[in-house]
Amino acid sequence: MMTPTAETTHIDLNAMGKRAKAASVAIARATTNQKNALLLALADSLETHTPAILEANRVDLDEGRANGLGEALLDRLDLLKRLAGIIADVRYVATLPDPVGKSFDERTLPNGLRVSRRRIPLGVLGVIYEARPNVTVEVASLALKTGNAVILRGGKETLRTNVALVTAIQEALAAHHIPADAVQLIASTDRAYVAQMLKLDQYIDVIIPRGGASLHQLCKENSTIPVITGGVGICHFFVDVSAKQEASLNIIHNAKTSRPSVCNTLDTLLIHRDIAAEFLPKVVQHLRPAGVTFKADESALQIVGAADDITPAAADDFDTEWMALVLGLKVVDSMDEAIDHIRAHSLDHSDGILTEDTANAERFLNEVMSSAVFWNASTRFNDGGALGLGAEVAVSTQKLHARGPMGLEELTTYKWVVIGDGQIRG
Amino acid sequence: MMTPTAETTHIDLNAMGKRAKAASVAIARATTNQKNALLLALADSLETHTPAILEANRVDLDEGRANGLGEALLDRLDLLKRLAGIIADVRYVATLPDPVGKSFDERTLPNGLRVSRRRIPLGVLGVIYEARPNVTVEVASLALKTGNAVILRGGKETLRTNVALVTAIQEALAAHHIPADAVQLIASTDRAYVAQMLKLDQYIDVIIPRGGASLHQLCKENSTIPVITGGVGICHFFVDVSAKQEASLNIIHNAKTSRPSVCNTLDTLLIHRDIAAEFLPKVVQHLRPAGVTFKADESALQIVGAADDITPAAADDFDTEWMALVLGLKVVDSMDEAIDHIRAHSLDHSDGILTEDTANAERFLNEVMSSAVFWNASTRFNDGGALGLGAEVAVSTQKLHARGPMGLEELTTYKWVVIGDGQIRG
Repeated sequence: MMTPTAETTHIDLNAMGKRAKAASVAIARATTNQKNALLLALADSLETHTPAILEANRVDLDEGRANGLGEALLDRLDLLKRLAGIIADVRYVATLPDPVGKSFDERTLPNGLRVSRRRIPLGVLGVIYEARPNVTVEVASLALKTGNAVILRGGKETLRTNVALVTAIQEALAAHHIPADAVQLIASTDRAYVAQMLKLDQYIDVIIPRGGASLHQLCKENSTIPVITGGVGICHFFVDVSAKQEASLNIIHNAKTSRPSVCNTLDTLLIHRDIAAEFLPKVVQHLRPAGVTFKADESALQIVGAADDITPAAADDFDTEWMALVLGLKVVDSMDEAIDHIRAHSLDHSDGILTEDTANAERFLNEVMSSAVFWNASTRFNDGGALGLGAEVAVSTQKLHARGPMGLEELTTYKWVVIGDGQIRG
Repeated sequence: MMTPTAETTHIDLNAMGKRAKAASVAIARATTNQKNALLLALADSLETHTPAILEANRVDLDEGRANGLGEALLDRLDLLKRLAGIIADVRYVATLPDPVGKSFDERTLPNGLRVSRRRIPLGVLGVIYEARPNVTVEVASLALKTGNAVILRGGKETLRTNVALVTAIQEALAAHHIPADAVQLIASTDRAYVAQMLKLDQYIDVIIPRGGASLHQLCKENSTIPVITGGVGICHFFVDVSAKQEASLNIIHNAKTSRPSVCNTLDTLLIHRDIAAEFLPKVVQHLRPAGVTFKADESALQIVGAADDITPAAADDFDTEWMALVLGLKVVDSMDEAIDHIRAHSLDHSDGILTEDTANAERFLNEVMSSAVFWNASTRFNDGGALGLGAEVAVSTQKLHARGPMGLEELTTYKWVVIGDGQIRG
C-alpha cells in the first residue's frame, strides 16, 4: 500500500502499475453489494477527512493565488462549496446499476455449445487530468463501481488536495479489505511521470485523458496503451429553410450561452441562404444581449452588417473551438454544403440540424458521423447525465470502443464464455 | 483512382489516406442492397480476373521458391486450389446481416428527448498482414459489407498477387459507382510505408494487424491510430479432479493437434495433483501418436518419466506460444494455483477448464479474464465462424472495443442520435 505524499521525490511507476494490476484482480472479484458498500464507506471517509481535505485545498489555493493563477482556474480548484456535492455524487453512484457480470448475445449453437458474452472490468484505468480535484473522486468512484483499479495523475495546481482525497479513499478501501492500491495517485508534478505512465502497457489497460486538445494529442502520440480521445469539439447547427424560428433561436441561445467553456457548446451556425436574410438578424438580436460576439462569413456579413461585435471570419475561425461567447456565422446554399462544411471542420463531437423537414433531418442524422447528432435539440445534451447514463467519465470522439458520453458500461469490456459437454472442432 | 502496380517507386500515403477518407463517405452511404450487389459483382470480377490473378500468383511463388521460402509459407501463398473458395466466401458475406444502421438503447427521456445509438461504419480501416493473399479479399469484402474503406498492406512475398486481386476488386467498385479508392493497396515492399501508415491518424480510424507478436508490438509502439492487438495466444486447460477423463483427452487432443500453428491452439496443460498420477500418463499415451512432444515440470516429469519426447520444461517454456506439436505439462495443487498460473502466463486469448464441478467451473469462468473462456469445450472454438459470427476479421486480446473474434459488428462503431422538439438544457 502506498500513501502518496506531496514530498515524494522518486516514484517507481512500474511498481505502482504492478500493484494496481494485483489490486484490479481483487476489485474485479467484488460483488455489486460489496462495491456499493465500499462506495458508501468511501463517502463517509471523505466526510471524516473533510477538514484535512479543505485545509490541503486552502494551501493549494493560496499557492495558486501567489503564482498568479486566474480566477476561473482558482474557482475550478476550490472545493469549499463543492465537496458536499462531490460526496453526494459518490453515494449516487452506489445506487446505479452495475454492468459487470451481465451476459449478452446468449445463444446455443447447432453443436450444442452455449455461447455468450459477459461484461468484465477493463482492468486498470490510467486517468490524466488537469486542475479539477472533483475528477479525482468522480473517477475513483466510477472505476470502483465497475470493478476497475485506477492510477490517477491530476493537475499540478491541486496536488495537495488530491493527496488528501486519495488518502481518504484508500482508508475506505483498506477498511473494506480491498487493496488500497486499487486507487493510486502519481503524487508528483514532474511531467516525466506522464511520459512513463503512457508506456506502462504491461499494467494499464486504457488511458483516459481529461483536458484540452494538447493533452489528448500528447497521449495519442506517446502512448503504447489504447487511449480514449475526445473532450474537444467544434460544434455546428445547420438551420434549414423549414426551421421553426422561435424554437431554433431558443436552442441556439442555449447551445451557445448556457456554459460557453465546455466542449458541447455551439461554435458555428450554418444558415440556409433562403432564410438567411430573415433569420440572421434575429440570431444577432437574440444572442447579443448575452454578450455573444460574431465571426461572420462574407454573405452573413452582408446581411447583418459589420459592427463592434460582428467581424469578418478569418481563415481559421471555422476551425476554432471558441470556449467563449463567440459564434461563427456562415450562409450555405444547401444542406449538402452544410454537411460538407461539418465534415471538413467538425471534430466529431456534437452537430445538429434545426428543421421541420423529416426527410432532411433523417438524411442529416445519417450522413453526419459525429459522436452525437441532434435534431431540434441543444448540443449541450451531449453529456452522460443528460442522455440518461447516470454518470460520465469522459466524452469520446474517437471511433473505437466508445463514442460520445462514456458511462459505467463503457468502463467495462467483455469476454466470451463457451460452455460445452465435450465438443471439439472438426 | 489508383491502380496499384508492383513497379510503383514512390507512394504518397497522405494522398492515399485522403482518397480513402473521401471514398469512405461514399461507401458509408450505400444501402445494404447496394453493398450486397457490390459484393456479388466483386466475386464475379475475381472470377473474370482469375487467369491474371493465378499468373501473378505463379510469379510470386516462383520468386519465393527461388528465394528459398519454406514449404509451409509457399503453401500459404498458393491460391491455385484456394481461389474458388475465397470467391465463394465473398458471396457468403453478401448473405450475412448488415449491422450498419441498427439502432440500440432506444429510450425517451423524461424531457421528451428521443435518444438512441445507431451503428455506423468505423470509417477507414488500415490492415497490415503477412503472406496470406486470401486476407486481401476477405478483409476487403468484410470492410465493404460494413461500409468501411480500407487501406491494405500485405506481405512482400505476395505483392503481385495482391495487386492482381485489388485490380479485380477496384474494377467491381468502379462499375458500381463506388470510388475504387474504397479498397487501396500499398503496392510496395518498402517497410518505411508501414511506419508512415501508422501515423496517418488524420485519415485512418483503426489499425488491424494480422500476424505475429512482433507485428502487433510494432503497431502498438509506433501507431498514433488506435490498434486492435491480438492474434497471439498462450492457451491453457486446467484439468480439475472431477474431469471426465475420456472426454477431456478428446478435447485436449483436438485443442493441441487439429491445427498446431494457429493462435487458439493449446500450449499448456495444468493438471490437479490429485489426478495427475492417473491422468498424465493417459495424456502422453493419447497425444504421442499424433507426434506431440512434451515439456514437463518437475512433478509431471516424476510421473511420466523423461523420454526422447518428454523433456524438462525450461524457465521460459510456459511463456512460449508453441505454434507446433509441443505441449507444456504442469501439476498444480489447486484451482487457485491454476488460475494464478494462467494470470501470469496467458496472453488473454483462450483458456479453459475441464471439470464436472459446476461451482469450480463458474468460478474459473468468472476469474479468468481471457478473451474467451471454455468449460468442457476445445479452445479451438475461439474463432468468428465457430462462435456463430459468420465471419471474422481478426481475434482481439485487448480490452478496448472488441475482444475475441471480431465479426461484422466489430467493424462498426455508433453515434448517438438525439431527436427533440425544442429541448434545451437547464
